[in-house]
Amino acid sequence: MRISSLAERTGVPVATLKFYLREGLLPPGAATSRTQARYDETHVERVRLVRALIESASLSLGAVRQVLTVLDDPPASKHLLMGAAQHALLRDEERRASPADSPADTEPAVALLSRWGWDCDLHDPAVVRLAEQLRAAEAGGVTPPAEQLDAFARACETIADADLATVPEEPEAAVRQVVVGTLLTDPILLTLRRLAQQQSGRAASGDRIPPDGRPGPA
Amino acid sequence: MRISSLAERTGVPVATLKFYLREGLLPPGAATSRTQARYDETHVERVRLVRALIESASLSLGAVRQVLTVLDDPPASKHLLMGAAQHALLRDEERRASPADSPADTEPAVALLSRWGWDCDLHDPAVVRLAEQLRAAEAGGVTPPAEQLDAFARACETIADADLATVPEEPEAAVRQVVVGTLLTDPILLTLRRLAQQQSGRAASGDRIPPDGRPGPA
Repeated sequence: MRISSLAERTGVPVATLKFYLREGLLPPGAATSRTQARYDETHVERVRLVRALIESASLSLGAVRQVLTVLDDPPASKHLLMGAAQHALLRDEERRASPADSPADTEPAVALLSRWGWDCDLHDPAVVRLAEQLRAAEAGGVTPPAEQLDAFARACETIADADLATVPEEPEAAVRQVVVGTLLTDPILLTLRRLAQQQSGRAASGDRIPPDGRPGPA
Repeated sequence: MRISSLAERTGVPVATLKFYLREGLLPPGAATSRTQARYDETHVERVRLVRALIESASLSLGAVRQVLTVLDDPPASKHLLMGAAQHALLRDEERRASPADSPADTEPAVALLSRWGWDCDLHDPAVVRLAEQLRAAEAGGVTPPAEQLDAFARACETIADADLATVPEEPEAAVRQVVVGTLLTDPILLTLRRLAQQQSGRAASGDRIPPDGRPGPA
């Protein structure tokens, strides 16, 4: 199909598609003349993926490019592949974060993780990031109490088991699922947290609407 | 204290403090001359909070301003206050998201919420947002299966109960905790999700290090 049809199929304007091509987010089509090229179903899928990453996961163009690099050249073993996918996920937030004045002390993070029986590499960027996030929360005056963090850990074990169950065996599909699936469901998770807070708040304040539909006490 | 001392105490450069003052993120100090003002401990705390919101929660300046507005003028009842805090949280992501081509169908989101027995207002911006996030995930080719979403809901109930337990009675402190506590712990939650995925991945692939410290099967 021509670029105008690709635009129609995906709902993305031609000018944006040309931008994706220039930025390397979309592989070039098969040239049919000096100024025209043909695109196929792989382009349709790629455009939808790029659009979803930028729109929903709010990724930077650089991060989108890294996700695509992992997708286009997946490492040999499933374990390496999960690692590469994880790193692509981590890099963007690191790049967007203001550089810290001094590296955060990782000891509180490591103490937490070992209390939960989680085996983590101390140099894992996720551990370093956790340490920085704990420090930032403390600096913002909202040091999470141990009970809250323990609840987070139990909740994240539930989430991760469900996440893993969605990862297929085939390598490219597995990377896509780990990277894109995690990124695109992160916002869903945070929205559900807010909605669940409203439920908890209503239950606590007693104005939950009972199953028979009559309003509760005011 | 003078602005230079405020900079020293908070580790934030004088130029940045002046920017915060111009942008209304930091209330003016008490003027001591035409060009000088005195700042106190409330300024130290405010600067730390603004810094944490921008650095860790990656909020836009507009959203930081809204959070501060809720903090500085909390509504009368705790329930209204929780609502105002929730809205301040929701607005930023809405503003940053590209405008959707067409409003998402909220029916799948509402069906999910009622399956979980969650009473939600259909016009709640969080419900609309959930509908858009589900559509975006589907558009990105990673439609979350029902089992994964059910696990998210159970996990978020655990999280929300723990969140609510941290909210104090005093109104201003409650808003601070709901807005800032949720925003600053969101990234912690997402990092723990990734670390928990690693744990699940290791457990599934059998290379978890057993408690006695001997490496498991390669």
